[in-house]
Amino acid sequence: MQQPIAILDSGVGGLTVAKEVMRQLPREKIVYFGDTARTPYGPRSSEEIIRFTREIVDYLIQFNPKMIVIACNTATAAGLEDIRSRVEIPVIGVINPGARAAIRLTVTGCVGVIGTEGTIKSKAYDQALKALSPEITVISEACPRFVPLVEKGNFRSRETYETVQSSLGHLQGYPMDTLILGCTHYPFLTETISEVMGQGVTLISSADETAREISAILDKKGSLSQGDSIPVHQFFCSGDTRIFQLITHQWLGKQIQLSPVVWQIPTIV
Amino acid sequence: MQQPIAILDSGVGGLTVAKEVMRQLPREKIVYFGDTARTPYGPRSSEEIIRFTREIVDYLIQFNPKMIVIACNTATAAGLEDIRSRVEIPVIGVINPGARAAIRLTVTGCVGVIGTEGTIKSKAYDQALKALSPEITVISEACPRFVPLVEKGNFRSRETYETVQSSLGHLQGYPMDTLILGCTHYPFLTETISEVMGQGVTLISSADETAREISAILDKKGSLSQGDSIPVHQFFCSGDTRIFQLITHQWLGKQIQLSPVVWQIPTIV
Repeated sequence: MQQPIAILDSGVGGLTVAKEVMRQLPREKIVYFGDTARTPYGPRSSEEIIRFTREIVDYLIQFNPKMIVIACNTATAAGLEDIRSRVEIPVIGVINPGARAAIRLTVTGCVGVIGTEGTIKSKAYDQALKALSPEITVISEACPRFVPLVEKGNFRSRETYETVQSSLGHLQGYPMDTLILGCTHYPFLTETISEVMGQGVTLISSADETAREISAILDKKGSLSQGDSIPVHQFFCSGDTRIFQLITHQWLGKQIQLSPVVWQIPTIV
Repeated sequence: MQQPIAILDSGVGGLTVAKEVMRQLPREKIVYFGDTARTPYGPRSSEEIIRFTREIVDYLIQFNPKMIVIACNTATAAGLEDIRSRVEIPVIGVINPGARAAIRLTVTGCVGVIGTEGTIKSKAYDQALKALSPEITVISEACPRFVPLVEKGNFRSRETYETVQSSLGHLQGYPMDTLILGCTHYPFLTETISEVMGQGVTLISSADETAREISAILDKKGSLSQGDSIPVHQFFCSGDTRIFQLITHQWLGKQIQLSPVVWQIPTIV
């Protein structure tokens, strides 16, 4: 029986990680949980986020996963160490992979980070970046209005452009050449963020980078899937299934056939 | 006492990995060994390469490293599993990191790989790429004339351009959008290879990618260096020190102050 990779998120943001895992590791089976009933996590206390994260991990562990991916920056900042101390399997978050990619790519040494209030207030990216490379300058900005736009599926409207412009416009005053999308929801807004930031700034998606590290760590442990059968992924959410299904289809549907997908709603809320 | 990262290569090629480790992980101490007396490894038998690699690892182990990096594609293809079975610390090669990066970046699904005869004949990249993503098309080409150019420090001459053009020109007939520099010597020739391949082909340096995976794996193990002192690197080679010192200075000197560097020649040849 093929052990899956368990991916959890506060909502649909972690689908950006799931999509990259499907693309970079097409042999791996995914079990995904989006806590859409309690999104956004950004404004919540870290105690509450840790409690929610534990509940979801307790739910996902029944699938006997070989790895747990906390595909939410806010939950990584609050709960990564807590979950690591509670389970035997590898647990990876989305913050250090993004930090590593920024260090690799920056030339000016000035790196921007945008995320939820929780992530930015935790200074998790500042710490991760400076632990790796003490000379890096970090400019952080909380963007609390982005996640609600994404959770509604509002990726490319005039409202979205104006929200992004008013949140990020002032960052252009810095010599930054690299901007970490420090929230797995933000890749849904990549085009708009690119337009506002201009060509001189490379956007780093924690999703792409995390998928690469999942591959490296499973490879190092010798636990990459060897099978030739097409994996059957499973998706769960705690809230309204209709909009979740819509966004999942819109985001994953173009490239990947999800067949059969099992939709089930656990009753943890 | 800070444990170093041990990096070994058939000659100066692994300096491309060392340079990226210094840039991405400026707190880490490096002990480097270049087997310049016995370069190139490309045309040698895998039995001989395994024997050489064991000798170098036996030499490097005296420095109590926390990780061994086989920064040579030919030695990775021949000896990675052998060395893994002989030491307790993590051993990483340069093939899988490059394969992972190619899978992440390709859009056409057609990936080129260039390397030494030994690497190409081993089919190590084909296997690594297809193990991760079975649908990838791989076009491989052995370029035995590249390493001797680099070992002589001949990076940008007319001879170099003509050698690269005659070795790679015919690859332009394929729909490849990604070319893996499957030899750590080749990043020295990046500009020339880029000129020949054109803008539509992204070059992947195993060096950059390997440095990122070193970071990810040390991070996952909690063994990243925490100290604030500037690490003192050590470089060793088995052959002529003058040209090795010249290339090392030329390659690392621009960005990084190597002070004091200890130059010593072991007597393993």
